[in-house]
Amino acid sequence: MKAWQATPPFGLSALRLIDLPRPTPGPQQMLIKVHAAALNYRDLEMASGTYQGQPQHAFTLLSDGAGEVVEVGAAVTRVKPGERVIGCFWQGWEGGRLGDNAGALPLGGPLDGMLSEYVLLDERGVVPCPAHLSWEEAATLPCAALTAWQALVTEGQIKAGDWVLLQGTGGVSLFALQFALLHGARVIVSSSQDDKLQRLQALGATGLINYRSTPDWHEQVMAITDGHGVDHVLEVGGPRSFVQSLLSLRPSGQINVIGYLGGQQGEINPLLILQRNARVRGIAVGPRQSFESMNRAIEANGLRPLLDSVHDWLDLPAALAHLQSGRHFGKVVLRITAD
Amino acid sequence: MKAWQATPPFGLSALRLIDLPRPTPGPQQMLIKVHAAALNYRDLEMASGTYQGQPQHAFTLLSDGAGEVVEVGAAVTRVKPGERVIGCFWQGWEGGRLGDNAGALPLGGPLDGMLSEYVLLDERGVVPCPAHLSWEEAATLPCAALTAWQALVTEGQIKAGDWVLLQGTGGVSLFALQFALLHGARVIVSSSQDDKLQRLQALGATGLINYRSTPDWHEQVMAITDGHGVDHVLEVGGPRSFVQSLLSLRPSGQINVIGYLGGQQGEINPLLILQRNARVRGIAVGPRQSFESMNRAIEANGLRPLLDSVHDWLDLPAALAHLQSGRHFGKVVLRITAD
Amino acid sequence: MKAWQATPPFGLSALRLIDLPRPTPGPQQMLIKVHAAALNYRDLEMASGTYQGQPQHAFTLLSDGAGEVVEVGAAVTRVKPGERVIGCFWQGWEGGRLGDNAGALPLGGPLDGMLSEYVLLDERGVVPCPAHLSWEEAATLPCAALTAWQALVTEGQIKAGDWVLLQGTGGVSLFALQFALLHGARVIVSSSQDDKLQRLQALGATGLINYRSTPDWHEQVMAITDGHGVDHVLEVGGPRSFVQSLLSLRPSGQINVIGYLGGQQGEINPLLILQRNARVRGIAVGPRQSFESMNRAIEANGLRPLLDSVHDWLDLPAALAHLQSGRHFGKVVLRITAD
Amino acid sequence: MKAWQATPPFGLSALRLIDLPRPTPGPQQMLIKVHAAALNYRDLEMASGTYQGQPQHAFTLLSDGAGEVVEVGAAVTRVKPGERVIGCFWQGWEGGRLGDNAGALPLGGPLDGMLSEYVLLDERGVVPCPAHLSWEEAATLPCAALTAWQALVTEGQIKAGDWVLLQGTGGVSLFALQFALLHGARVIVSSSQDDKLQRLQALGATGLINYRSTPDWHEQVMAITDGHGVDHVLEVGGPRSFVQSLLSLRPSGQINVIGYLGGQQGEINPLLILQRNARVRGIAVGPRQSFESMNRAIEANGLRPLLDSVHDWLDLPAALAHLQSGRHFGKVVLRITAD
Repeated sequence: MKAWQATPPFGLSALRLIDLPRPTPGPQQMLIKVHAAALNYRDLEMASGTYQGQPQHAFTLLSDGAGEVVEVGAAVTRVKPGERVIGCFWQGWEGGRLGDNAGALPLGGPLDGMLSEYVLLDERGVVPCPAHLSWEEAATLPCAALTAWQALVTEGQIKAGDWVLLQGTGGVSLFALQFALLHGARVIVSSSQDDKLQRLQALGATGLINYRSTPDWHEQVMAITDGHGVDHVLEVGGPRSFVQSLLSLRPSGQINVIGYLGGQQGEINPLLILQRNARVRGIAVGPRQSFESMNRAIEANGLRPLLDSVHDWLDLPAALAHLQSGRHFGKVVLRITAD
Repeated sequence: MKAWQATPPFGLSALRLIDLPRPTPGPQQMLIKVHAAALNYRDLEMASGTYQGQPQHAFTLLSDGAGEVVEVGAAVTRVKPGERVIGCFWQGWEGGRLGDNAGALPLGGPLDGMLSEYVLLDERGVVPCPAHLSWEEAATLPCAALTAWQALVTEGQIKAGDWVLLQGTGGVSLFALQFALLHGARVIVSSSQDDKLQRLQALGATGLINYRSTPDWHEQVMAITDGHGVDHVLEVGGPRSFVQSLLSLRPSGQINVIGYLGGQQGEINPLLILQRNARVRGIAVGPRQSFESMNRAIEANGLRPLLDSVHDWLDLPAALAHLQSGRHFGKVVLRITAD
Repeated sequence: MKAWQATPPFGLSALRLIDLPRPTPGPQQMLIKVHAAALNYRDLEMASGTYQGQPQHAFTLLSDGAGEVVEVGAAVTRVKPGERVIGCFWQGWEGGRLGDNAGALPLGGPLDGMLSEYVLLDERGVVPCPAHLSWEEAATLPCAALTAWQALVTEGQIKAGDWVLLQGTGGVSLFALQFALLHGARVIVSSSQDDKLQRLQALGATGLINYRSTPDWHEQVMAITDGHGVDHVLEVGGPRSFVQSLLSLRPSGQINVIGYLGGQQGEINPLLILQRNARVRGIAVGPRQSFESMNRAIEANGLRPLLDSVHDWLDLPAALAHLQSGRHFGKVVLRITAD
Repeated sequence: MKAWQATPPFGLSALRLIDLPRPTPGPQQMLIKVHAAALNYRDLEMASGTYQGQPQHAFTLLSDGAGEVVEVGAAVTRVKPGERVIGCFWQGWEGGRLGDNAGALPLGGPLDGMLSEYVLLDERGVVPCPAHLSWEEAATLPCAALTAWQALVTEGQIKAGDWVLLQGTGGVSLFALQFALLHGARVIVSSSQDDKLQRLQALGATGLINYRSTPDWHEQVMAITDGHGVDHVLEVGGPRSFVQSLLSLRPSGQINVIGYLGGQQGEINPLLILQRNARVRGIAVGPRQSFESMNRAIEANGLRPLLDSVHDWLDLPAALAHLQSGRHFGKVVLRITAD
């Protein structure tokens, strides 16, 4: 079988589509024929060799993917051949908090990922596909969608009437927009591009902020919310953005730290955390139980992920370049076409 | 000013529309000119003198009402004359759990209620009216709506994809239907009348059960939910209904006990609570903070209460008789017309 | 190797100490040489064939046991040979709520239990032994201790100053007494025997109730708590006891339903649940993450389980008879002596 | 009556002991004869005129105080003359989260504080004194103790076996040490002075860190906790300390931001929040319901606050200078001696 791997010393020019023996499931494992996989910014860092905590060995790329179970081990009870499944980003995190699960590891580095004709996963490391989704749609859920769900729903307990502040048009923000609206909440989004803001408005966002033309955008947040501030922030920027988010917050509001696209260093005044009675938490995707509850919501409401483009998996480098360009709006997906 | 009171020895024939002096606000109070009030089943018991814990003194009837602030005490900072407000069922319960608020008391018995041309309330005992609601709509919120919100949202942390089981077409059930749908949840309702079930279906209910023709209705709940059971029950019946609810429950699902229309006595096997890992809680309306968050949701989503009928407040006995008949669908409201 | 099994048609006279081949671990499994096992009331029912949901096949008895890892599968990373471990009652429940873990099953029926010279368990199905405990002490933790911890700590979030009501001197009650005191809480216990009440007082219980001489014991609870009622109940009786517990509860207090020794049927008035704003939940032991946090508490505080007696495992029938007699105070333990 | 006030343009030399008319309670108020008051760092800033958000008007100093009710308004039901009460730091925050209580304000600036022979408070703005405490002991609870309780218990849900990291020997840290031990938790404390560390050890602290001799003290935290990190931090320093705390944290551990003694500016890398799955929250004392539950714990366990010294209230300037010196260990209290 074929698989795309990142190999030391890493770098986008060192990606290799290699031949590997098709593996055989152990007693509690299944073999999945992968049909589609999706890109996240993390994959770009993994492929480039710049990830904080980059593995030092070769590994199959991509955390996100969906496929069909084709073989199961003797002790497997949770899945059957023929079922459509999606891999979980964290293998070994089933529920509760991350710290209580020593040994949970992510797919797509350090564990071998989904960009392969076949993958072996533990029977506890997958969830069923929502029935109404295509392979390409289903493949987008493990990282971006679950991060948004974990932040807003599992941890954030979002409710109708809440204000949600989203930043930019990355995968997490777009899923968060959909999930917030699904719960009757109101959404403010920021972007540096007015055309993207218009698309976000068409999707249901109420408040629109161009953070390039409005660097002190917390004032605009306060104006939109009649001076109350927002209940939830999905923070994907660095310290500069974090300070604006703190100033945009309703007292006792929540900030979910999920990225650092704006850089890693900068000044944060902890007095602001105190004065706003802020709740700040790091969100590192989520456990399988959270994925299962998200999928129930997606299926019950017929929700569909927003796809930017679908590429043949042989064109991985071009797809990564497209992701890197920042021109996408929605998930960038790879279709895996077996020989 | 005029006010409808229940007077010892009580009974529907002993309701009196009496003249009282218009009161003057103390430093932390306001005087409200009441425009509308709404009926709950509790009011029928209070008026009849059959309430468990019936006050022994005369009192002004009705827990639900909305009006305009016409005068405020010297120390009042939370409201201003001219503002539209709704009274809180519990005077003195602001947040947290009920047990931590010794001294909280309900309007409409033992405290004087809202069926009066003017009422005096503490500035902490009201919430602002959602701007898009009429007086008649606003008056319906304090008991039935807040009970549904407290059960599903504040305590129940409902999320998209959850299954909710409602019983009948009382005020709490209808608001719960609206709130569940607002959060992307799915609703099963039971009723003894097929025409009411059809109206519930038109409002968005997915599963419909005639509990008269299907006394063992938990089997139908399991069929509708593909064998999973429901996440939330709003239990308004007595022990017989409670057992069906337990059997309808998803493991770790929640039952909110809010009424006992089906009687107070009967056998419940606690082993069922254990086996389902059930979460059962009594819901006695909710605190002001919960009311405020509900109103934010109502306003943000332009939600409107379902009204059955609006009566002149002088026709209180007829309105109570209509409520008692069980023919209503939606809230029964009284319009208060000052001389 | 030898193992004690219950075999159809079951009954205490049909227990068999049989010879089985020593099993070999699969990739994610370990082989444990068991040193001690402990009895629970559930085991008595399983052995007698009277358990609600009795398995129909032969199975090795006992949910509780501790031993040494002697061999691990190729993929095992969480444990090493030589380590001391305790089996988890639920195999396959790692964290969160039980309903989200389809497929979790208990040891000692239907899964083969711990009363065997060697047992095979998944590497996720054990926790490390607290270092200061003997094999006999460690073996007592999986059911009784974890049920008490799950009810009071994981679910109940007990805090200093809370009042806890315990019933009788079963294993769960005794562990609950220890855990409540560890958190600065106050304990009321009931028993039918004054000598047991004296032993409970010596262990730190503040309030003592003989429920035989005081059938309406909720009045005594109210007297002891200055009229406030208790925050937590561990309910092990049936409906009659349940009603007394409801009447003993502080508003918004919690009842954990963990048993039904007083029978399964009887009248419960759900109005009481409503009036007390009670929180009632079924507690079916707990997940591995809860076990791990309990063991940290046990180890940090040097807490030791209370042992009634240690028997040779060949004397299983006598040990079961002792449990059935109700004369024990503390856990009844079996020492497993290999040939 | 006499009262110590801070007056514009503020400054320690501008404190004035002035004569004021003794006030009369409104309908929902009480008059308290104050017997003792206690100093917090906030009072030093308020007295100096350097508080972030310094009031611009003259006000009576001190947030913490205890006294006897001597007169009540006509509508008061919660307290009676002769009762011993303690004022709440936040007037108007009863329960739930701070953001849901618009209008809550602190004593000791902007509201008039407790350093007065008599004070007027709303009947909802006090809690009963634990019976075993002296006036001086009771006066220490409103700010420092409640902040520690709110962080560890109400919000942090501390449990036996948890690791708690405290910084220095300020009032909050000392109460947090007592509350942590009361719940069976383990405590690591840091200080710049070895003699203070020895006193902390005598009080029950397990891990001792001199942060002056060990600037990268997170390594020592990791060594003490066998590499696991701590569950709770009470962060009283600025950004430099915050980074060490993040590095000391167990995955999913909690940081409570309660002060900024080490300065307000500095670099924090939000990637650390993400990587540790950290929970960071600002703690601004707590609501009355939390105070009441804390007092139950204090009373049930006979816990006594640690007093550094008791001064005559006429010596306020000397007491403030003593607090400023940093030589104290325990609360600095003023005894109010009426003429």
